[in-house]
Amino acid sequence: MAIAAPKGVSILGSTGSIGTTTLALIERFPQRFRIVALAAGRRADLVKQHVLRFRPALVSVGDARDAAALAAALSNEMGAAAPVVRHGAEGLRAVACAAGTEVLVSALVGAVGLEPTLAAIDAGIDIALANKEVMVVAGQLVRRRAAASGARLLPVDSEHNAVFQALAGRDPAHVAKIVLTASGGPFREHSAEQLSLVTREQALRHPTWNMGSKITIDSATLMNKGLEVIEARWLFDVEPRDIEVLVHPQSIVHALVRYRDESVIAVLALPDMTIPIAYALSHPDVLELAHLPRLDLAAAGTLTFGRPDPVRFPCLALAYRALAAGGTMPAVANAANEVAVARFLADDIGFGDIARTVSACMDAHTPLPCDSVEVLLQADAEARRMAAAAQLHRASA
Amino acid sequence: MAIAAPKGVSILGSTGSIGTTTLALIERFPQRFRIVALAAGRRADLVKQHVLRFRPALVSVGDARDAAALAAALSNEMGAAAPVVRHGAEGLRAVACAAGTEVLVSALVGAVGLEPTLAAIDAGIDIALANKEVMVVAGQLVRRRAAASGARLLPVDSEHNAVFQALAGRDPAHVAKIVLTASGGPFREHSAEQLSLVTREQALRHPTWNMGSKITIDSATLMNKGLEVIEARWLFDVEPRDIEVLVHPQSIVHALVRYRDESVIAVLALPDMTIPIAYALSHPDVLELAHLPRLDLAAAGTLTFGRPDPVRFPCLALAYRALAAGGTMPAVANAANEVAVARFLADDIGFGDIARTVSACMDAHTPLPCDSVEVLLQADAEARRMAAAAQLHRASA
Repeated sequence: MAIAAPKGVSILGSTGSIGTTTLALIERFPQRFRIVALAAGRRADLVKQHVLRFRPALVSVGDARDAAALAAALSNEMGAAAPVVRHGAEGLRAVACAAGTEVLVSALVGAVGLEPTLAAIDAGIDIALANKEVMVVAGQLVRRRAAASGARLLPVDSEHNAVFQALAGRDPAHVAKIVLTASGGPFREHSAEQLSLVTREQALRHPTWNMGSKITIDSATLMNKGLEVIEARWLFDVEPRDIEVLVHPQSIVHALVRYRDESVIAVLALPDMTIPIAYALSHPDVLELAHLPRLDLAAAGTLTFGRPDPVRFPCLALAYRALAAGGTMPAVANAANEVAVARFLADDIGFGDIARTVSACMDAHTPLPCDSVEVLLQADAEARRMAAAAQLHRASA
Repeated sequence: MAIAAPKGVSILGSTGSIGTTTLALIERFPQRFRIVALAAGRRADLVKQHVLRFRPALVSVGDARDAAALAAALSNEMGAAAPVVRHGAEGLRAVACAAGTEVLVSALVGAVGLEPTLAAIDAGIDIALANKEVMVVAGQLVRRRAAASGARLLPVDSEHNAVFQALAGRDPAHVAKIVLTASGGPFREHSAEQLSLVTREQALRHPTWNMGSKITIDSATLMNKGLEVIEARWLFDVEPRDIEVLVHPQSIVHALVRYRDESVIAVLALPDMTIPIAYALSHPDVLELAHLPRLDLAAAGTLTFGRPDPVRFPCLALAYRALAAGGTMPAVANAANEVAVARFLADDIGFGDIARTVSACMDAHTPLPCDSVEVLLQADAEARRMAAAAQLHRASA
């Protein structure tokens, strides 16, 4: 296949799990992609290594001190070839909209990625979207702005990428249901009582994916799946009632789409983020990834499916409740959950208190229309304050 | 959805299982489809009922006597509105190419469907293809003629329809493998010795699909899957080495396509031929089939997969061997198998003798290029004679 010129890629969150996987992929396909700009909050040493390897024109780090140190070190090693070094929110925006960026990998964690991602969308840059909070907090706004500028939203999350693939070449009017699978987390089989006694250490052991601790806890509470339902609602413009969750412990089927004729398209792959990242970056082309381990269903033998239990895992229902309330409510649910998970990880509240905190913050919030980033970030901040202050009686010993 | 005019459908094999399922579907969607012409070999009474219900302009039955009787009966009941009645090979051709036919459902059983289906293809009529032998015997020729006339080949077989769906909207250059699933038949778990003792009655019990006796035996020997591999090779223009078979006893996943990026698209549905027939007839539109039972994976619980055993089920390897030999060899394998199955059903040879008969007929055949229907039908006839005459020592008691 002859490719005219390598596609210009910039990354928000280049030292995280998605960022480094993206860089490894780009290193494997130098004829296909080139790095334009990189932004990372911490791990300045790794940023320096990436700069020397990928030669971006622009790089951004967390604060002014890190930026000065990195600029000096790079100038030392690269001389006139050293990239511009920026920092902070302004640096993120500069990386997101750097000249020559054809696709932005939005892979920061949390609401901090929202403003730079929106800036790239407004500039008409395609987004390979891994930063869940962008859609959870501001999905309606993001969708509207992308429609206005023509920027494409290319999901990187394995479930949403799978939905995106299952919808390829089909008329959205023919879709009956979108089904996201959930591993069910490590406590799939726990009774309500066992759940109330779950410890931080138990919750951090995830059966199939190797992830950060926040998302591992979200996976154990099923809030991760709830947030993905919110994402799917805006990524694919489907009504919440047409999004379902199916428990599938093997994490091989990532999503399914049921069509009106009762045919179901499922997308399967081994759990490796290289595949959805590559799909998003190369779309509509497909990269040859024969170096990855291959899915062998005969060797896997058995795939199992079940319904999520709404009683033992109330976070999933809270996400649907947030969607039904609309406006700023999903931002509140997300922010309250972030704080509650941090408190659980600090051994400050029990496992079941995570859902209780989210529910209490939602009860106290009257949703406003999702008109601007400001109103969303204000709701987010208020929910954080409230979740941090919530007095909860620890259920566990 | 506003539909300009109902699509004109003609059916070869209107009283068989595919034919009657097609008619039931068309009856449910009178704004979408209208019947132009019907052909059936036997069951003149049912043909008459269908004519009164669907009012085709033309109908064809097996022989002159049946045709005369039907014409008299219809004239009696319908007067001047009675359709033209034809018979035999000429009648099949007339139905296949009847004026106003936009899609021909090719659902005869055996090589008898080849000539009328080719006539429709040459006339540029789209084919909803259920008659396996058309592609098994003459796939290369059919593909060439369809490409020349612009007729589309729309697979109705559930596995091939699933492949067709899994390829929708994707670039064929991105396909790595096509995987057809097989229930594995009733003897999936039998030892080689148990297999040699299998009786006609045991073989006719199929676990998930309710089918005719010929195809049920083919399902037990896996020759059915072998014939489907040959079909897939020509329907989708893929090399035989890129077609795999996966045993999947639940018959819910009908086919999978692995792409070069290690993503796998699977197509799932409950085993009901209404779904692939509707997909083929309405393509690229999709009909609402909410009246059908719905696939519920959580209720199904478990899907299992395994590799077919080439030692216990030699018919699958014979099909690949026929493809590798090329030309007239698939026609010979198919014809020899038909006769061998008939002999097994007549209690004349044992279960294991089916594969032995096919293998012996292939050994004795030197393949000729697949240039014309005549050379294919001649190879077919020779293989039938040889398979009928083959002296086999019955392995079973």
